[in-house]
Amino acid sequence: MPLFSEISEQPERIKNLLASQRKQAERIAAEIRNREIDYVFLAARGTSDNAGRYANYLLGAMNGLPLVLAAPSLFTYYKKPPRLKSALVIGISQSGKSPDIVSVLEEGRRQGCLTLSITNEPDSPLAQTSDFLLELKAGAEKAVAATKTYTAELMCVAMLSAALVNDKKMWAGLANIPDWMRQTLRQNDLISESVQRYRYMDQTVVLGRGFNYSTAFEWALKLKELTYIIAEPYSSADFAHGPIAMVESGYPVFAVAAKGKVFDSMLEMLKRLRSDISAELVVISNDKRALSLAQVPLKIPTDMPEWLSPLVSILPAQLFAYHLTLAKGYNTEQPRSIRKVTETK
Amino acid sequence: MPLFSEISEQPERIKNLLASQRKQAERIAAEIRNREIDYVFLAARGTSDNAGRYANYLLGAMNGLPLVLAAPSLFTYYKKPPRLKSALVIGISQSGKSPDIVSVLEEGRRQGCLTLSITNEPDSPLAQTSDFLLELKAGAEKAVAATKTYTAELMCVAMLSAALVNDKKMWAGLANIPDWMRQTLRQNDLISESVQRYRYMDQTVVLGRGFNYSTAFEWALKLKELTYIIAEPYSSADFAHGPIAMVESGYPVFAVAAKGKVFDSMLEMLKRLRSDISAELVVISNDKRALSLAQVPLKIPTDMPEWLSPLVSILPAQLFAYHLTLAKGYNTEQPRSIRKVTETK
Repeated sequence: MPLFSEISEQPERIKNLLASQRKQAERIAAEIRNREIDYVFLAARGTSDNAGRYANYLLGAMNGLPLVLAAPSLFTYYKKPPRLKSALVIGISQSGKSPDIVSVLEEGRRQGCLTLSITNEPDSPLAQTSDFLLELKAGAEKAVAATKTYTAELMCVAMLSAALVNDKKMWAGLANIPDWMRQTLRQNDLISESVQRYRYMDQTVVLGRGFNYSTAFEWALKLKELTYIIAEPYSSADFAHGPIAMVESGYPVFAVAAKGKVFDSMLEMLKRLRSDISAELVVISNDKRALSLAQVPLKIPTDMPEWLSPLVSILPAQLFAYHLTLAKGYNTEQPRSIRKVTETK
Repeated sequence: MPLFSEISEQPERIKNLLASQRKQAERIAAEIRNREIDYVFLAARGTSDNAGRYANYLLGAMNGLPLVLAAPSLFTYYKKPPRLKSALVIGISQSGKSPDIVSVLEEGRRQGCLTLSITNEPDSPLAQTSDFLLELKAGAEKAVAATKTYTAELMCVAMLSAALVNDKKMWAGLANIPDWMRQTLRQNDLISESVQRYRYMDQTVVLGRGFNYSTAFEWALKLKELTYIIAEPYSSADFAHGPIAMVESGYPVFAVAAKGKVFDSMLEMLKRLRSDISAELVVISNDKRALSLAQVPLKIPTDMPEWLSPLVSILPAQLFAYHLTLAKGYNTEQPRSIRKVTETK
């Protein structure tokens, strides 16, 4: 089945991507340094938009760059694109074909901005519209639900960030990701048993914060695409501002709680959900305190820096969605109502 | 009951707000023109974040300003705020008390940016941290679910946009909002009957696009806070990129489809949902074609320009959430697990 093999081949793909695109990332970083770039303007949809959420935190924290997540309809329907003075314009798309994302890059070019595409298709309209290309090098992705192209998109963003800082330690961290991924994939059998408990679950919320805000969104998207569960992603802070009211005893809450700067705030939320509300918890973490609160704990390596954890913490989430799809008796390769390439304006 | 009277008093509050804050909006616009502002950096949470979504489209389309929705944790937990060179920094908060929003404004000041707060509390930490203040003038909001402060926040954003363009026609449109609101509120009895059909609904998605992307988010938030329904908001384009897979025959979809540039794309999605999937539709619109597709059509005035429609289209959504809360037998004034002022870091 393509979906399972695409999940499984991620360590190898990421290793090759690093070898193949590091020099290109360094060339792009040099060009960014040559220009007066004040902020990043990023256009993406679906899974690629979740890679954009990672870029928002990573380029902010590591490179001091604020990031605008583009509203493509301003370019397509309203035909009133904003002034993009001093912006680096980035488009992320597996296929490189969605017309709305291409039109954001075209406008960036028209306004004289530096433009960068991150795509699996070097001959796509998106790649052809941009000054620079970072190629995902993920091989053809056959399953409709994106998995290996998502981690490849995160990797491209992380390589760009490392190249901008030009930090050996960051590059060493990136080289370790395939190993961390392999360790994590070993939980496959455990996950395939754990999902049975959720055979009849029809809704959940997925919490993440900081770098792993992206992971919460992507886990939720996989659950929606594959298992048709209503899964709504939140930062734990936004969740506290209203939506927590939905949760009652036994309500399933999924959470990504990697060690790092936001861990304490996630732990506090998990304690509140477990002790005060008796929620059901599925937790991806590398901290025993968070794992011990969960009915289903999913482990990620303990020696991983927080900024790289989204590349690894999404793997148990992908496996969880895959096995739950099987448990529910749905088609893992061809979800209803969606196609591999969605072309929106 | 405070919630119902706060919904009902919105026309009067908006009228007073326009009279009270127009001059201040013009002073702020003059100062913005004096500076080299390349983009807006906006921090908000919950309902105020939805007002930020409106600002994203409005300041983009009318004023050419790209908008960054801040990731507050970069300022609080990571302590790595991005460089805010050439940004106008805006904080929106009803109470003006959330420490994370205040710390974004503090950092903006530290970096020498022009700062603006939009709040109901002129003596709040947020107001005291900013160069300029637009006051919501909404009177005390007693219900935990925000209604009148939301439309007041939208109005402040709209006044700022009009002042920056300095366009008489825009100001005339703003002066018309109280009348459009009054017309819309007349559907109260109809809505209180319509909600009965949804007494046992436990999940839905809420679609909106362009200017009314904000309305979809705010309608969904009211449903979550008050009725504990899982209500997930989407742009119709993002919805097509995966989540539409969740929808099966009879599944309830709520939509905001005001006439304007994105109307045709919303209509196409509504037709697809009704004809291909047999979804159940609740539609807020001022176009007969969209209303005729709905099991429950909720009308808004036909002579309203799209850019102002979010100020009016949220009213039937607020009434819908209010009456559905009563129909479900829940407390409209004090939802479980949340408080009026949520202080997050």
